[in-house]
Amino acid sequence: MPIIEMHMMVGRTTEQKRRVMAAVAKAAADALDCSINTVRILITEHQLDEFSVAGVSAAEKQETAKPTD
Amino acid sequence: MPIIEMHMMVGRTTEQKRRVMAAVAKAAADALDCSINTVRILITEHQLDEFSVAGVSAAEKQETAKPTD
Amino acid sequence: MPIIEMHMMVGRTTEQKRRVMAAVAKAAADALDCSINTVRILITEHQLDEFSVAGVSAAEKQETAKPTD
Amino acid sequence: MPIIEMHMMVGRTTEQKRRVMAAVAKAAADALDCSINTVRILITEHQLDEFSVAGVSAAEKQETAKPTD
Amino acid sequence: MPIIEMHMMVGRTTEQKRRVMAAVAKAAADALDCSINTVRILITEHQLDEFSVAGVSAAEKQETAKPTD
Amino acid sequence: MPIIEMHMMVGRTTEQKRRVMAAVAKAAADALDCSINTVRILITEHQLDEFSVAGVSAAEKQETAKPTD
Repeated sequence: MPIIEMHMMVGRTTEQKRRVMAAVAKAAADALDCSINTVRILITEHQLDEFSVAGVSAAEKQETAKPTD
Repeated sequence: MPIIEMHMMVGRTTEQKRRVMAAVAKAAADALDCSINTVRILITEHQLDEFSVAGVSAAEKQETAKPTD
Repeated sequence: MPIIEMHMMVGRTTEQKRRVMAAVAKAAADALDCSINTVRILITEHQLDEFSVAGVSAAEKQETAKPTD
Repeated sequence: MPIIEMHMMVGRTTEQKRRVMAAVAKAAADALDCSINTVRILITEHQLDEFSVAGVSAAEKQETAKPTD
Repeated sequence: MPIIEMHMMVGRTTEQKRRVMAAVAKAAADALDCSINTVRILITEHQLDEFSVAGVSAAEKQETAKPTD
Repeated sequence: MPIIEMHMMVGRTTEQKRRVMAAVAKAAADALDCSINTVRILITEHQLDEFSVAGVSAAEKQETAKPTD
């Protein structure tokens, strides 16, 4: 422990995942004053239609934003 | 908050996911009397061989049921 | 399935939890067109110092808000 | 209940998943002295770049190990 | 890996938790043919008003059942 | 997103939780190059008899270690 589950939108590269896991593991170990060897991280990616804020999926939000953004 | 994780069998359409996220977000906000803007929902889909009841996977159950169902 | 995990701030009454579980289960079953009997919901409560947005815990946010709120 | 979530590296066969779900469900029901019918298991698979120990992803570890292993 | 999260109703003894963690870890390692040292298990307990089937919490179900059960 | 769940042994102070949430949120936002405002973190604490490695709970491990450690 700690065991950390990260939920992210799909689309990060392997390099980004490596970087975020290295940075988060170090931050957690430093802040909790524990060995980094005890830190395990799991990433779960979610498609655009698998995440919503206020009941509106990221897919819908992206569609709506397209004309102006 | 609330943050809601929904585990479902694979196979729903994007339209069904939108509908269930909209309905669940509204239901949660109404019942908890909080702003729907605070409701975040994550969907994780599971393959037929990644869910089991009583130790029997959905895949096995479907195979067994095929001849009669 | 679906199996639904709800993360909430601590402090809801048993009555509120009943109401939100009833409402969310019905919303999910209706939207997914499945039997409500297949819907299982788990609630996990989090203390004010166990949830953060932008790295600021709900406890800190509440303290900051106290003078004006 | 119990509801059990298993996180595993990607790559197991359907047969292995069936076997582990059957074995874990039986072990849990026996040890908790409850009906196996109440045991639900969800498997989530993670890619090699989605799991890390000590901030080092399984993908990196595998690459490093290749020349000698 | 595997990392296993077990959700259970509150009320098991420390002895029962030890037993189920030992049994499930062994079952998972045997079935997946991996070292038991790689198996981590997390238990999360839920109160009676924090779990529902078909929108009915375990607390309500127990109350309803009391007169006859 | 990202939404981050941290599982930890019980016993950290509110100050430690604040520190780890601030550090992890910053690390994640920096590494993923996203706004820290999108980072939500949930902490779940586990008792000593609710976490095991190799089927041996942290409670047992601590007991065994007591005489010599």
